[in-house]
Amino acid sequence: MDVSANKDVSGDAFAVGVDFGTLSARALVVRVSDGAEAGTAVSEYRHGVIDRELAGADLPPDWALQDPADYTGALAAAIPAAIRDAGIDPAQVIGIATDFTASTCMPVLADGTPLCQLPGLAARPHAYPKLWKHHAAQPHADRINAVAHERGEKWINRYGGKISSEWQFAKALQLLEEDFELYQRADRWIEAADWIIWQLCGTETRNACTAGYKGIFQDGSYPSPAYLAALDPRFVSFAAGKLAHPISPLGARAGGLTPAAAALTGLPAGIAVAVGNVDAHVTVPAAGPVAAGKMVAIMGTSTCHVMNGQQSMNGAELAEVPGMCGVVDGGIVAGLWGYEAGQSGVGDIFAWFARNGVPGEFAGEARQRGVSLQQLLDEKAAAQPVGAHGLIALDWEGGNRSVLVDGRLSGAIIGLTLATTAPEIYRALLESTAFGTRMIMDTFADSGVPVTELVVAGGLTKSAPLMQIYADVTRRPLSVIGSEQGPALGSAIHAAVAAGAYPDVPAAAAVMGRIDRDIYQPDAARADVYDELYAEYVRLHDYFGRGENQVMYRLRAIRDRAWAAREAAR
Amino acid sequence: MDVSANKDVSGDAFAVGVDFGTLSARALVVRVSDGAEAGTAVSEYRHGVIDRELAGADLPPDWALQDPADYTGALAAAIPAAIRDAGIDPAQVIGIATDFTASTCMPVLADGTPLCQLPGLAARPHAYPKLWKHHAAQPHADRINAVAHERGEKWINRYGGKISSEWQFAKALQLLEEDFELYQRADRWIEAADWIIWQLCGTETRNACTAGYKGIFQDGSYPSPAYLAALDPRFVSFAAGKLAHPISPLGARAGGLTPAAAALTGLPAGIAVAVGNVDAHVTVPAAGPVAAGKMVAIMGTSTCHVMNGQQSMNGAELAEVPGMCGVVDGGIVAGLWGYEAGQSGVGDIFAWFARNGVPGEFAGEARQRGVSLQQLLDEKAAAQPVGAHGLIALDWEGGNRSVLVDGRLSGAIIGLTLATTAPEIYRALLESTAFGTRMIMDTFADSGVPVTELVVAGGLTKSAPLMQIYADVTRRPLSVIGSEQGPALGSAIHAAVAAGAYPDVPAAAAVMGRIDRDIYQPDAARADVYDELYAEYVRLHDYFGRGENQVMYRLRAIRDRAWAAREAAR
Repeated sequence: MDVSANKDVSGDAFAVGVDFGTLSARALVVRVSDGAEAGTAVSEYRHGVIDRELAGADLPPDWALQDPADYTGALAAAIPAAIRDAGIDPAQVIGIATDFTASTCMPVLADGTPLCQLPGLAARPHAYPKLWKHHAAQPHADRINAVAHERGEKWINRYGGKISSEWQFAKALQLLEEDFELYQRADRWIEAADWIIWQLCGTETRNACTAGYKGIFQDGSYPSPAYLAALDPRFVSFAAGKLAHPISPLGARAGGLTPAAAALTGLPAGIAVAVGNVDAHVTVPAAGPVAAGKMVAIMGTSTCHVMNGQQSMNGAELAEVPGMCGVVDGGIVAGLWGYEAGQSGVGDIFAWFARNGVPGEFAGEARQRGVSLQQLLDEKAAAQPVGAHGLIALDWEGGNRSVLVDGRLSGAIIGLTLATTAPEIYRALLESTAFGTRMIMDTFADSGVPVTELVVAGGLTKSAPLMQIYADVTRRPLSVIGSEQGPALGSAIHAAVAAGAYPDVPAAAAVMGRIDRDIYQPDAARADVYDELYAEYVRLHDYFGRGENQVMYRLRAIRDRAWAAREAAR
Repeated sequence: MDVSANKDVSGDAFAVGVDFGTLSARALVVRVSDGAEAGTAVSEYRHGVIDRELAGADLPPDWALQDPADYTGALAAAIPAAIRDAGIDPAQVIGIATDFTASTCMPVLADGTPLCQLPGLAARPHAYPKLWKHHAAQPHADRINAVAHERGEKWINRYGGKISSEWQFAKALQLLEEDFELYQRADRWIEAADWIIWQLCGTETRNACTAGYKGIFQDGSYPSPAYLAALDPRFVSFAAGKLAHPISPLGARAGGLTPAAAALTGLPAGIAVAVGNVDAHVTVPAAGPVAAGKMVAIMGTSTCHVMNGQQSMNGAELAEVPGMCGVVDGGIVAGLWGYEAGQSGVGDIFAWFARNGVPGEFAGEARQRGVSLQQLLDEKAAAQPVGAHGLIALDWEGGNRSVLVDGRLSGAIIGLTLATTAPEIYRALLESTAFGTRMIMDTFADSGVPVTELVVAGGLTKSAPLMQIYADVTRRPLSVIGSEQGPALGSAIHAAVAAGAYPDVPAAAAVMGRIDRDIYQPDAARADVYDELYAEYVRLHDYFGRGENQVMYRLRAIRDRAWAAREAAR
């Protein structure tokens, strides 16, 4: 921690940021005056990702749920532990803010009670929060997109022409069509990002970030009732009935910490609770000064690319980028257009391969050397000359978020020989995600939103070999966020703003954020080889991803049929 | 063994067949009167496949050599052990025959001494036999093909339009261009299949099978000097100088066992030694009655598909099948056109994956259950509904022999998701080889050589799940050869003919060969799903294999450059 033991900090003010990730939540205690990190703690979700079975029954492929009790449980576990780790008096905390995976959304009653917590609904999959990586609503997303284009809905171009199956509307439409009774019982359809704030301050709020990026809130309104009715007549009042609520700007105060939440977290009742936020977007101010063209790639299980563009509202300069996740007024920082793109699977792919594709000898070697299997694979990957594996991979094991926005795509590996080894495939997978990032950056540049600086954040920045690959593939120096807890630090920055310690988020970011510039430099010779490999990636990307050969769709359909037939036979 | 202990066999005549495989040689003692298998023994080659380093120096990618001392060592070890296992008197043996992998060919002196056994040449890679799966002569094969087509050489169509990099001419041309001094020192360039016969009977012979399939011997001659000179002026007298020799029909007597060979093997001097043969082709008579349209697939590390067509010579009915390995007059059985096709990697692919792609938990489970890892994977593959893995693979990890005849192709797996498991990929690989076989059968049928019966032989027939996949994918009943030692039994049949016990190979095959008919039946529902998957296979096969996207070539070139650069930097 930056706050040294031999300095008296008893007079300092602190903010708490809580980052709700895919498998755990992390609380970080940050000094308001300089962003120094005083203490931290993690709480794993008891149920993790619910993607195989629920209440003893198999879930279909592509489902991914969570249990909201894990979220409140994490507040109760991680915050007091982080305060203890910081060695401060809880009374020194002036504000709390959180960030969440998104779109992780859920049906709740008017008082915020999740449907899955109601008697008799514990075994109903649709009663649970659908995690961001729940990909079973693709047919619904397809219809959302087709109908939007048919009707010429203007908002569709704010999302690169495609609404993702991961977002609020697709998941809600799936609920409606697959469990209409539950749809009717849901008074509200809410992001977990906003739901957790509700638990802290007792009031429902809706933040500008999730509303804009995940909820199709553009130019002051949600999609029209006529459009919703065209999707399904029963869906007509979805936005007006289950979503509508004033939108709060990021960094605003949602309310004061309730006595119940104070008891849960050990923090003082009444302190500022900031409005909700998304893990990726909240990280931008944690990387120091806010500037247009500074792309922050938050690299974890998935990667989000977030970047502020030029001034919003009447200042304008809005660009529409094919396949971006969205461009939202004030979506990252109030007053600027916030652009988002992403890759559905990144660290997830590496972890999947380490778990499923690596023979035991490597696990043995890692154990013997006291490193993790992925550290060992990183090292073995780094030792290979660029291109020596003869492989090219498509990074779509978790679908493609940008620039194709297509959850039905899947991964591919080309170039295997009888001499191919697991560490070689691993390197090809690392590279495939770097190619995916380059594809996104190129698409932004082609659309008139050039990336002027590339900053990386998130857990994967710990892998120096991976970072070097990204520098070489993108042919750019890589700056690294100066905190290992970017999202939690970003949340703490928002908490400080909500508590009134700074006038706005950019002012707080300039003081509390941190960046280490140009840590990884591209190597020209390696970049030359990567140019060749990237050309192959682009060609395969377009062949499999832009409709020339929709084999991935068909394989998925055959797979789903096979599983359905097996279920039916039981 | 079939020869029961309580019967007196001391008056029976026996033949010995020796099958030289990729890693070991197997001797089989067979009763001449009925084909009963009396005893067997295996000898592993001490040096196995030499594909990583030779005399302390790294070999380049795609090289695969062997040590000929391992071949004679195997004779000395396996034959006496098989005789002991049979419990017979060696004096009861009336003949010996062998079969070999092909094209495994080598440079030797006029007396048969391999160059690698000469003083000072032990560290020269080109002095060694190049194993069938040595794939480093692809550029030479490319030139062989281009020049043949330019010049309109008629023989090229007897090989599906392409000569493989695995065969005699490509490997010899590589020797010439990469080590001309050794090329000059080689008096003869000979198949290991013929070389081993030379060691047994003291006389050089050349068999119709390897001369035809691997040596471009057609209509009574090798390619012309003018053609050879067009490849390289120094190559002009290659055929006349290093190959030319009368061709012996299969089953003919090459000579009598020399006293030295008798001492080596423990067999009586003077007994009949049959001319050489190839492991695949020799298996056909082991599968019982010889008939046109009966395709025998010998499935091991690779698969050979061999089939007799209609009458040869003036009777004619010769078909030219695109991508077949060859059609040879008397290439399988004297008097019939023998067709050959093949897949470069089959069991090799499964073994590669089991070694390189399967996490330790499965190895642990296999150990615990006392089965091999591949048996366990077979079982887990069999438990999956067809298509449930959502995958399609191209079976080209070892290149493609038929019908594309292209060693520069490589493997591909499409459809990976974060839920994909190793046993699912394993099943996709099993299926990919079945699709490869179906592609070959379809191509034969399209060329007017329909397959009327499919018989499987070789080590992979032990895998019932694999066999069922082949039955379902080809939508045909599968007959299984009635011996676990098809090639060695086939060799013993040839030994019996060479010894005069039968008038010809078909007569011996009808008595000594064995087949279990229609053991695996196709299932219509599974076959329907496979029709869909096969359509995807065909499309990807053509996309990657017929020039539309030569990414596999380019990846290989990038790989080779990367390795060369690393070598140069050392």
